[in-house]
Amino acid sequence: MKHNFGAGPCILPAIVLDQAADAVRDFNGIGLSILEISHRTPEFEAVINETQGLVRELLNVPADYSILFLQGGASTQFSMLAMNFLHQGKKAAYLDTGFFSLKAIKEALFFGEVDIVASSKDKNYYYVPVGYQIPATAAYFHYCSNNTIEGTEMFSHPASSVPVICDMSSDIFSRPIQVADFDLIYAGAQKNMGPAGMTLVVVKNNLLEKITAEVASMSDYRIFRDNNSMFNTPPVFSIYVAMLNLRWLKEKGGVTQQEVENIAKSDLLYTEIDRNTLFYGLADPKDRSRMNVTFKMHDPGLEAEFLDFASQKGIVGIKGYPSAGGFRVSLYNALPISSVEVLVKCMQDFEAKNLNQKVSLENKVTV
Amino acid sequence: MKHNFGAGPCILPAIVLDQAADAVRDFNGIGLSILEISHRTPEFEAVINETQGLVRELLNVPADYSILFLQGGASTQFSMLAMNFLHQGKKAAYLDTGFFSLKAIKEALFFGEVDIVASSKDKNYYYVPVGYQIPATAAYFHYCSNNTIEGTEMFSHPASSVPVICDMSSDIFSRPIQVADFDLIYAGAQKNMGPAGMTLVVVKNNLLEKITAEVASMSDYRIFRDNNSMFNTPPVFSIYVAMLNLRWLKEKGGVTQQEVENIAKSDLLYTEIDRNTLFYGLADPKDRSRMNVTFKMHDPGLEAEFLDFASQKGIVGIKGYPSAGGFRVSLYNALPISSVEVLVKCMQDFEAKNLNQKVSLENKVTV
Repeated sequence: MKHNFGAGPCILPAIVLDQAADAVRDFNGIGLSILEISHRTPEFEAVINETQGLVRELLNVPADYSILFLQGGASTQFSMLAMNFLHQGKKAAYLDTGFFSLKAIKEALFFGEVDIVASSKDKNYYYVPVGYQIPATAAYFHYCSNNTIEGTEMFSHPASSVPVICDMSSDIFSRPIQVADFDLIYAGAQKNMGPAGMTLVVVKNNLLEKITAEVASMSDYRIFRDNNSMFNTPPVFSIYVAMLNLRWLKEKGGVTQQEVENIAKSDLLYTEIDRNTLFYGLADPKDRSRMNVTFKMHDPGLEAEFLDFASQKGIVGIKGYPSAGGFRVSLYNALPISSVEVLVKCMQDFEAKNLNQKVSLENKVTV
Repeated sequence: MKHNFGAGPCILPAIVLDQAADAVRDFNGIGLSILEISHRTPEFEAVINETQGLVRELLNVPADYSILFLQGGASTQFSMLAMNFLHQGKKAAYLDTGFFSLKAIKEALFFGEVDIVASSKDKNYYYVPVGYQIPATAAYFHYCSNNTIEGTEMFSHPASSVPVICDMSSDIFSRPIQVADFDLIYAGAQKNMGPAGMTLVVVKNNLLEKITAEVASMSDYRIFRDNNSMFNTPPVFSIYVAMLNLRWLKEKGGVTQQEVENIAKSDLLYTEIDRNTLFYGLADPKDRSRMNVTFKMHDPGLEAEFLDFASQKGIVGIKGYPSAGGFRVSLYNALPISSVEVLVKCMQDFEAKNLNQKVSLENKVTV
């Protein structure tokens, strides 16, 4: 039994994996695999339409928004959104809250000018800035709602008079959101939605009407909207597994129930980090992410030993991002609270073991 | 038992589907699904490296070429290649041989000028032009080696003094090729390589050195080369299944053996089309594709009946592309010759049935 705390591609529900495996052998009993049916069949049309319907229902997406499935990950959105909306003569406003927000900024610069309204780079991005102004002349305001590497999350954002574009790759479907607060939401699927290879875009239709840029077809959101995300061959299997996963989420009570669980899981872990004498959290407590919990040890020399100690208990995927170090524990939707309990117990055991060693060493020194 | 003649996503070997299904449940016995491991794990590094190695071995790719795995399908390559190589002040030379070659041309026009060196549009693309000149000043020469919708294939191409870029989406891995004849080859995976969601690019390294355009990261071939196709999260599962499928191809004797089978399969079907009094082939016999066989019935009123007759024998995916009509039968690598035998028998039975009806009707009229 593995406890998969990986940051993405990450844990998916066991039942979803079972259903996906069955469909790889025989999809809906039609005698063909989900991997070998055309996207132009009625069978796949039903899949893509159900997936869209589940996104609309679970996120309560208003009727004047379109739901698109693209390829290329959030990284492709970094450039594609600027290509579509950063029109000449305008600047785009970006909030710089971490590694991926900075990547988004770098890609936007290929297409126009960027105004960084605030940055938390001064403290290694371990907090989220507040009190900044979004220029009324900006083409749009972009931010990343959950910073996977740094472990911060934004549960509210400033009022904006310009279109709001949000990278929700790592916290989408983890809690209710007000879609109407946004003009475009995008998310790589490989955390709370499904396997890698698909990117969700939820976009307000009237934002698409503002596009004046000449954009190649595969970079034009309107082409995806007008062709039900099937201008070309879509990532059939990734969409299918996302459908299975969203069915699972709906069945268990949707994002409202999921938020209750995600709060319980993250509270349990943060409480232990704050209590345990060996560990300390990295993110400012007011900005702590429920999805990605970052922490270190007061004695960095013990980190390798703890990793090994944890892996013996089936705990995987907790090593921090290389540039950040320490630990990053991801608590995505499919992770059961029982896995967090195992991790917390493991931290307590490691602390006890360590204190015993210390006492025993001190005794030796005394003797 | 289904006989899957679909044009793509299309048939994959049964053993590959079994192995893929197993890995969705538990990948290599590590207690995690292939869908829930990080692309940064040693386990996935081994997968991507083996897949690259198999491509290199099976296509005999020279050492000075890079092998990349992208997302977005061949349609994304239509614009991406022009973005990288159609530099200002230059024209690109394109051969117009069908629906997808024309799409490639349309996307290139977003980035520069196009010189259509020859077109077979005058005869609905049912032949491949010869005897054209490729201007020595062109940025590159682009063509599509197999025209999926029209059913033509090019087994040779004119000598070119400029870089040659080829869309091999539907005939890659179907026969040996001389990679050194090309500067960049691209192919959507969902025919002979694996499931939808991944695109193969084989590119000569010194072509990449010629890029002077400022291109966003996810559109820059160099970024994919420099990051082993993992600048961002790659389509993990699609790459994994492609690896399984290429292992299968290697085991059965590689592209040389595959070509023998593909010739046998297509010869069998074309012979029946030419013999059968009800059917006629669409492509010029000298340009007939081994991958996609297009044909119609002399009496179009019988086509729906034949489709129904064939589907009762488990034959699926033979309906022609909507704009082309008639039938399109795809004979990709994983399709066994026994399926072609079933189709040929079905065409013969339908002819016999039809002749009997005719005789019986004529008898009635006489009486």
